Amino acid sequence: MTTLIQEKVRQALDILKEKDIDLWLIFVRETSVNSDPILPVIYGNETLTRQSALLMHQSGETIAIVGRIDAETSRLVGAYQNVIPCDAGISQYLLSELQRLNPARIAINTSLSNVMADGLSYGMHQLLVKMLVNTPFVDRLCSAEEIISALNGRKTPSEIALIQAAVDETFEIYQQTYNFMQPGQTEKDVSDFMHQQLADRNLLAAWTYEGCPAVNSGPDSPVGHAAPTDIQLERGHLVHFDFGVQKDGYCSDIQRMVYLLRPGESEAPIEVQQGFDLVRQAIEAARVVLHPGVTGLEVDTAARKVITDAGYPEYHYATGHQLGKRAHDGGGILGPQWEVYGDLPNQIIEKDQVYTIELGIALDGYGYIGLEEDVLVTAHGNEYLGEPQTKLVLL
Amino acid sequence: MTTLIQEKVRQALDILKEKDIDLWLIFVRETSVNSDPILPVIYGNETLTRQSALLMHQSGETIAIVGRIDAETSRLVGAYQNVIPCDAGISQYLLSELQRLNPARIAINTSLSNVMADGLSYGMHQLLVKMLVNTPFVDRLCSAEEIISALNGRKTPSEIALIQAAVDETFEIYQQTYNFMQPGQTEKDVSDFMHQQLADRNLLAAWTYEGCPAVNSGPDSPVGHAAPTDIQLERGHLVHFDFGVQKDGYCSDIQRMVYLLRPGESEAPIEVQQGFDLVRQAIEAARVVLHPGVTGLEVDTAARKVITDAGYPEYHYATGHQLGKRAHDGGGILGPQWEVYGDLPNQIIEKDQVYTIELGIALDGYGYIGLEEDVLVTAHGNEYLGEPQTKLVLL
Repeated sequence: MTTLIQEKVRQALDILKEKDIDLWLIFVRETSVNSDPILPVIYGNETLTRQSALLMHQSGETIAIVGRIDAETSRLVGAYQNVIPCDAGISQYLLSELQRLNPARIAINTSLSNVMADGLSYGMHQLLVKMLVNTPFVDRLCSAEEIISALNGRKTPSEIALIQAAVDETFEIYQQTYNFMQPGQTEKDVSDFMHQQLADRNLLAAWTYEGCPAVNSGPDSPVGHAAPTDIQLERGHLVHFDFGVQKDGYCSDIQRMVYLLRPGESEAPIEVQQGFDLVRQAIEAARVVLHPGVTGLEVDTAARKVITDAGYPEYHYATGHQLGKRAHDGGGILGPQWEVYGDLPNQIIEKDQVYTIELGIALDGYGYIGLEEDVLVTAHGNEYLGEPQTKLVLL
Repeated sequence: MTTLIQEKVRQALDILKEKDIDLWLIFVRETSVNSDPILPVIYGNETLTRQSALLMHQSGETIAIVGRIDAETSRLVGAYQNVIPCDAGISQYLLSELQRLNPARIAINTSLSNVMADGLSYGMHQLLVKMLVNTPFVDRLCSAEEIISALNGRKTPSEIALIQAAVDETFEIYQQTYNFMQPGQTEKDVSDFMHQQLADRNLLAAWTYEGCPAVNSGPDSPVGHAAPTDIQLERGHLVHFDFGVQKDGYCSDIQRMVYLLRPGESEAPIEVQQGFDLVRQAIEAARVVLHPGVTGLEVDTAARKVITDAGYPEYHYATGHQLGKRAHDGGGILGPQWEVYGDLPNQIIEKDQVYTIELGIALDGYGYIGLEEDVLVTAHGNEYLGEPQTKLVLL
């Protein structure tokens, strides 16, 4: 049986050919303290203690040069044909492999924009250059960004199934939460219930536990990546959720909206309904544009325009990010051309990428209205991973 | 009440004065994907989503320049007097703070040897230099290694108490495990029992769950950072454990030895006893040398000599590492002068650092004998955090 890691390493070898890069060199140390974000994808959750080099060559050859203490684990990963155990240092082994393979281009994990492709620390880059000094290889280094963006973005069928499973669990927990929640409870009470659901289902939170879920009840709740507060749920409040689970190593990330009906109300006030419809409309505007070949910037612009055209201030974040082993799974984003995003909004959207589409507005007197859906990019468009929220949940 | 993070930030400000560094600049982005190892110490477990800069100035001023989405969380950390929320980018705010403070030396997180002090990625370093181009500040950058080594190494009384608590739990779990284990069980059975103990006590494993504990029964078990196997415990086996817990964010890391008596035996065979005594003697040799003012290399040499003088091959790892929020808590190590360790063995040992002392030998026909104790460096020497193992556990 092929493991997910073996599957991704094979995919990486194909991408090396596609991008015409001879060798991908992943250089790490003491990954329990400071890991490389791509390591879980191509090596797994085990740590590498000493300075270690993982090498993938266009020819299909895969090599792990690791400390002796980690050699057995490296073999068990089953994705590296040649495991070379080292004691005092790795430089002689690395140099000898480089001389043998004589690659014209050596990709290393550094990127200005893509955090997933920027796993090489400044100190480790200096060390590598020191090891390669007086060899031709030092001038053959290039960025592995395009390898990592492709590898991380293009989900295999098994990866898509795992993300779908995480999304399914998230929907079930939301349903349980709607059944549980009622006025008088605090945001923390609701968050505690959802945490208990995670425990009962043997799931992890998709991001920092304290802030997953975010629960915002009414107009005074601080929105953002903050933990739920002692603010009470009250009738006439909008309750906003941002929540995701990690199941078998893959994540979901979904926002949902509830309105707590006041006595006598059988539906939400018209301004609440209009606000919700606007957010929903902006999500759809993004979705219509999202397909292979366009940039994330184009998708973002379409959604953002719906909000600003309606007279609301534009939201201070991107319209979407990729989803995978992490809730924020680096690579191209559906975002505006802001300094903070670097080149990420200009990357071309590809088939089999999974994105969130998320945005919101603050509605005076009621609270924040934010929705977030998870979608899979298909050959000619995209599809929702699970039913989108098209109506406010009324409780 | 002062939180641990507030305590460490205050300590950092004192260290800035001691080392005569004006400003410490921690520059990160999307820390849920790629964090800086010092962040848990000075910011906590919450993530920073956007490009963010934490600034600590010798004057005592502390500033967090963060994305708007993280601003509320930054305020709640309670260690940064001025939280500046940003939208499209942070460079204008960072430059304006630098111009106001006009620091002569700006420490950034880069180090050749100390992984805890090397949190700045190569790409982020390039971004920072781009932001500072055409300012005098680009030439004022220096390494924060000495700040981080001091801050991370010198444990506060609260931190020492937390490590002690983690050690105490570890001893209790070992005791339960001795009561549980018996011939016929596999290494995995024993590991499952210890994992259940972690769950029952609401603790985390101190390192990768699958390899914590390591359980090695007999001469055929692969020693290193590998997961326990289906090898069965047999009478006449040495059983070696490497195990640590994380309790309230702080770790222990302790190795223990059991011998499974054969029918008719009331003590271990003489060669087993001698092997154990040799390892024990080498641990004590390290401990006698370990005090403020010496280097880790001196401590390592003392212990290593005991093993090689007895005719055993030298062990392929350092005699000890620091312990704290992580089982391998970067900074100076008790290690030999090997390429792989860079400058770490030459750092001077300081009061209030916590080290492991660990080493071992392979005993033909019986298995691996390894011991590991956790010690606190005191004003003039060191003390064990808990009873060292001076006798083989006989079952």
